[in-house]
Amino acid sequence: MIKVGIVGGTGYTGVELLRLLATHPEVSLHAITSRSEAGIAVSELFPNLRGHVDLVFSIPDADQLAECDVVFFATPHTVAMALVPELIKRGTRVIDLSADFRLKDAKSWEHWYNTPHTCPEFLEQAVYGLPEVNREQIKTAQLVAVAGCYPTATQLGFLPLLENNIIDPQQLIADVKSGVSGAGRKASIGTLLTESSENMKAYAVAGHRHLPEIEQGLNLVSKQAVGLTFIPHLTPMIRGIHATLYGQLTSAVDLQALFEQRYADEPFVDVMPAGSQPETRSVRGSNTCRIAVHQPQGRNTVVVLAVIDNLVKGASGQAIQNMNIMFGFDEKLGINIIATMP
Amino acid sequence: MIKVGIVGGTGYTGVELLRLLATHPEVSLHAITSRSEAGIAVSELFPNLRGHVDLVFSIPDADQLAECDVVFFATPHTVAMALVPELIKRGTRVIDLSADFRLKDAKSWEHWYNTPHTCPEFLEQAVYGLPEVNREQIKTAQLVAVAGCYPTATQLGFLPLLENNIIDPQQLIADVKSGVSGAGRKASIGTLLTESSENMKAYAVAGHRHLPEIEQGLNLVSKQAVGLTFIPHLTPMIRGIHATLYGQLTSAVDLQALFEQRYADEPFVDVMPAGSQPETRSVRGSNTCRIAVHQPQGRNTVVVLAVIDNLVKGASGQAIQNMNIMFGFDEKLGINIIATMP
Amino acid sequence: MIKVGIVGGTGYTGVELLRLLATHPEVSLHAITSRSEAGIAVSELFPNLRGHVDLVFSIPDADQLAECDVVFFATPHTVAMALVPELIKRGTRVIDLSADFRLKDAKSWEHWYNTPHTCPEFLEQAVYGLPEVNREQIKTAQLVAVAGCYPTATQLGFLPLLENNIIDPQQLIADVKSGVSGAGRKASIGTLLTESSENMKAYAVAGHRHLPEIEQGLNLVSKQAVGLTFIPHLTPMIRGIHATLYGQLTSAVDLQALFEQRYADEPFVDVMPAGSQPETRSVRGSNTCRIAVHQPQGRNTVVVLAVIDNLVKGASGQAIQNMNIMFGFDEKLGINIIATMP
Amino acid sequence: MIKVGIVGGTGYTGVELLRLLATHPEVSLHAITSRSEAGIAVSELFPNLRGHVDLVFSIPDADQLAECDVVFFATPHTVAMALVPELIKRGTRVIDLSADFRLKDAKSWEHWYNTPHTCPEFLEQAVYGLPEVNREQIKTAQLVAVAGCYPTATQLGFLPLLENNIIDPQQLIADVKSGVSGAGRKASIGTLLTESSENMKAYAVAGHRHLPEIEQGLNLVSKQAVGLTFIPHLTPMIRGIHATLYGQLTSAVDLQALFEQRYADEPFVDVMPAGSQPETRSVRGSNTCRIAVHQPQGRNTVVVLAVIDNLVKGASGQAIQNMNIMFGFDEKLGINIIATMP
Repeated sequence: MIKVGIVGGTGYTGVELLRLLATHPEVSLHAITSRSEAGIAVSELFPNLRGHVDLVFSIPDADQLAECDVVFFATPHTVAMALVPELIKRGTRVIDLSADFRLKDAKSWEHWYNTPHTCPEFLEQAVYGLPEVNREQIKTAQLVAVAGCYPTATQLGFLPLLENNIIDPQQLIADVKSGVSGAGRKASIGTLLTESSENMKAYAVAGHRHLPEIEQGLNLVSKQAVGLTFIPHLTPMIRGIHATLYGQLTSAVDLQALFEQRYADEPFVDVMPAGSQPETRSVRGSNTCRIAVHQPQGRNTVVVLAVIDNLVKGASGQAIQNMNIMFGFDEKLGINIIATMP
Repeated sequence: MIKVGIVGGTGYTGVELLRLLATHPEVSLHAITSRSEAGIAVSELFPNLRGHVDLVFSIPDADQLAECDVVFFATPHTVAMALVPELIKRGTRVIDLSADFRLKDAKSWEHWYNTPHTCPEFLEQAVYGLPEVNREQIKTAQLVAVAGCYPTATQLGFLPLLENNIIDPQQLIADVKSGVSGAGRKASIGTLLTESSENMKAYAVAGHRHLPEIEQGLNLVSKQAVGLTFIPHLTPMIRGIHATLYGQLTSAVDLQALFEQRYADEPFVDVMPAGSQPETRSVRGSNTCRIAVHQPQGRNTVVVLAVIDNLVKGASGQAIQNMNIMFGFDEKLGINIIATMP
Repeated sequence: MIKVGIVGGTGYTGVELLRLLATHPEVSLHAITSRSEAGIAVSELFPNLRGHVDLVFSIPDADQLAECDVVFFATPHTVAMALVPELIKRGTRVIDLSADFRLKDAKSWEHWYNTPHTCPEFLEQAVYGLPEVNREQIKTAQLVAVAGCYPTATQLGFLPLLENNIIDPQQLIADVKSGVSGAGRKASIGTLLTESSENMKAYAVAGHRHLPEIEQGLNLVSKQAVGLTFIPHLTPMIRGIHATLYGQLTSAVDLQALFEQRYADEPFVDVMPAGSQPETRSVRGSNTCRIAVHQPQGRNTVVVLAVIDNLVKGASGQAIQNMNIMFGFDEKLGINIIATMP
Repeated sequence: MIKVGIVGGTGYTGVELLRLLATHPEVSLHAITSRSEAGIAVSELFPNLRGHVDLVFSIPDADQLAECDVVFFATPHTVAMALVPELIKRGTRVIDLSADFRLKDAKSWEHWYNTPHTCPEFLEQAVYGLPEVNREQIKTAQLVAVAGCYPTATQLGFLPLLENNIIDPQQLIADVKSGVSGAGRKASIGTLLTESSENMKAYAVAGHRHLPEIEQGLNLVSKQAVGLTFIPHLTPMIRGIHATLYGQLTSAVDLQALFEQRYADEPFVDVMPAGSQPETRSVRGSNTCRIAVHQPQGRNTVVVLAVIDNLVKGASGQAIQNMNIMFGFDEKLGINIIATMP
């Protein structure tokens, strides 16, 4: 039984952490903070938690948080970086769902996030929390930067191809589609039901913050700088990411076998049978990434289809998967959830 | 550990039973039948079950089913009545999610379902599976007729008022709204996304099959024949029932206290604080019924708002709640689920 | 050809006025104002208008507006009341889509809108813009207060019953369901797609601002104070209102004939054949109100189903219908639109 | 005023033709056929047409159809080919919305549609109904094969690039997303709201019937055989196609100017300002195709975003645009519609 704290519990990744941690058999919820909602019962803001979570939001307090074995940050960027050094110093491990520690290069981070990084010395020691790549390092990490939602789906889809050096790393295309919850729980006109249902559009075509994160990960496995065209789309649904990935094959291999072997031992990556087309709803609410690989018309273009729930495998579920690895629990503990269909 | 069979596993209540039973600690899934899909892996039809359920659909077979401690029927009406007598005779208990054994009066059943009832002698012994009313009888029942979706929400909302004789039983109005999954998993034009999204309509205004079921239940607690106007509406969402119930008060009471006391010990009925307006999504995927009671403008009309997930508390979750009671398990075992929000 | 101005063109009723007026053969768009968007092309904010409307938002200016034959106010309440006296004085007719002039009783208005009314002397002369009731007065009106969305559907549904004195005016129930566009185009968490899709809930159960407006209208035709229980619900769709209305019959009449006769000459009220159940999508984008009347099980409760598009017959379309009447145009001119299905 | 017939009026392209033709000032609707609904009023099946269309479905009859100046086929493939030779012979012009006459190569047609073509001699004379490419030929065509929905968006997006020979024709990628109405108005499980809302998936990855149609069109403008990877996706909305197109630039040009010049005189193609990201809802219900062109990060990959309403510019609107051209009407007559937002 470990003591867990959550900083920033009023967003979608926060309430999803609560849903999953409330029934995790090795977790005791110790504190959940929110400046704006301090004093309010969590279940008042999120009635689905009535009868399951009796915590009250509190003002973030370093002493209280330092009593925890691990603290999750489910906050906008720049919040974690202000508290993490103190917590790490006091021996509390940190799992950060925000982007603060995902990039290794402080200059790049400051360029894309357009604000100074206040503790760049932590960027190197932070472990990028994508278990399918960094499981060993995660075990002993003091600070984990959980992989983003698009980056998780996109990297899991490209990994087998780039690790085996069978596509041109200069011609990667990721056409990704996300449900609206990716935009977070904040008042805005663009994500009103009236504006975003019955509608499909691309956005951030000129450059999305997940681009450098994905390229950093793909560079590592490719051992060279990749060239990725990354086009995100807003899709009229609450949850789900569908990544459609395109690469130019440079050698002929059994793609199906390649993917099956790569993920044979991964508890949360499900390579579908040949010819399949995974649906986002098949992973809704679950921590699974479902993948299929195709080579249409036998031409040179390989097409990978990868789906995740952006709030689970793309955020809170993956954060708990990281926690399970860090504390030596069964990796599936508390997150071995079956998606709800329909 | 009990052996469980499911007849009719290809519909929405079937796959929902599978989702919930697959992780129930006292259940061993023994058989799941489907004439049309016999030989097909369950997880091929429902990819969300990949890695969780490895059963294959089989032809319904009385011998195999009779090996089970309990068999669920998740079938259209008239299927259960053909198999139930044999199973009961051989000592297998039955939980029927269909309408075959819900009405006590065979004539009424035949009128509303427009076909003969082939084993009317079982109508009397069948226990109506609404635990909040019939918990004691359910414990020893051989045959449980699980309450329908609209009937569950409507009865739970009216019960405290009628049991205490404080509204006119002749002037009950139930304006109920259901998600499209209530229509089942069958090809039809009316429930295509193109026809039923961005749309709201009433249906079956002249008479819905749940009307006699609800009236039968309300008659029992009112100790007289009630008069109910029951208007169902199709709502553009997958899951959820919202019942808005209207009654004419005949005496002044503390309505909030009345509801809180009535459901104080019920694990799956949550009376919201005064002034609340429950949302269907707060129970999505969970077995909870959330209720609020209002008396707008202090007038004579009492308004009860009750929400459930039609596939869980309105079908498969309630069926398992019945099973837990029948076999002496903790009533919440395996179904103490937190709704997913957003 | 008349000169038309629109104050407050950035909300949903504003853009809907533009869509409809842009092709109205007797209208010349003269000015459209918005403080926040002044200087921006209308078609930049609303790309659907590219190629159809080349106006630029301007700061509201009394002189420019007074050049118009008629000015529409598509504004939150309290905006119109600040400009209307000046415009009326200068001979410009006003069609107000907001609530500023809908109630005759200034005290009641101030109670429900919780702010002082700055020109109560205009309340009496303002004509309530529901053509099916006030067509004659509208013809010569200087100031029209367009009926609200719920009030339009609810009044059109109850009118034939109350005008003929065949239901108990003390026991009216209106269970109304609205699409999310009724909440307007403003940033808020509650109406995000993530919060309001896959969800159904009642709101404002304790008292909605449309209650006094509806009661005022029904009092007039009933010639007594009615008692209405009015329960609005938020429905996961963009457009549409479905009113389900309940009354207690006090005499036996041919309800179908009654409704057909009442609306025989109304260009925008379509009484459906007996037994029908109108769908909101059948009026989406159009100015029609479709109505059906039922008497389920032949009991005393009459049920009226009425559907409108809340932004057309419930707002901008009806505003133009009023304009057509005021200026002697064919009442259907420019708004004789066929709903888009699917 | 021309006499118009419609064969197959019960599908979505049929009702959309009716919506648009009912108010077309040069059209007199003469006949609408449906074997399954013969004798039923059109407005009974499609209540949105009540008060606007008083036709009754009739059995297809060559004599009645031959009285028309033009007959639209809004039918599944193989229906038009059975009637077209007779109608053409009798001097009636034909606009076929189905796929029967879209491919020039009968063998290819038979391969993709898996059935014999019964009048291959008409394939050559049929004019492919994409006005932006074939306007001159359409003017005098007896038989027009209206371009399909995906083919319209995809070709309009690639045309300026391929006509100017500035991308590698061997490396075209079209990642296209369609609303569910593309699947037509037919009972099926996969397109139920319960199955297709809150969901995103690719389909027909191995080969979609629109692939040869698109390649045929692109081959013509490229003057060589192109290589296209075409991946369609089902998107949880009723209407709309969003094509995201990728090409590898072979020379540096001003892409924005190129697109603006190509479509400067096209009434139904709107090239958005540089940096724009068109939304499908901005064309919902309208005949416009909105396009934007991007070169992310200044790399070699050009990205074109093109949106249409699949039932209007992708089917019935485009069919009427063809009709206007064939009969010398203003090309925008009757279809100069503003999209409804929200």
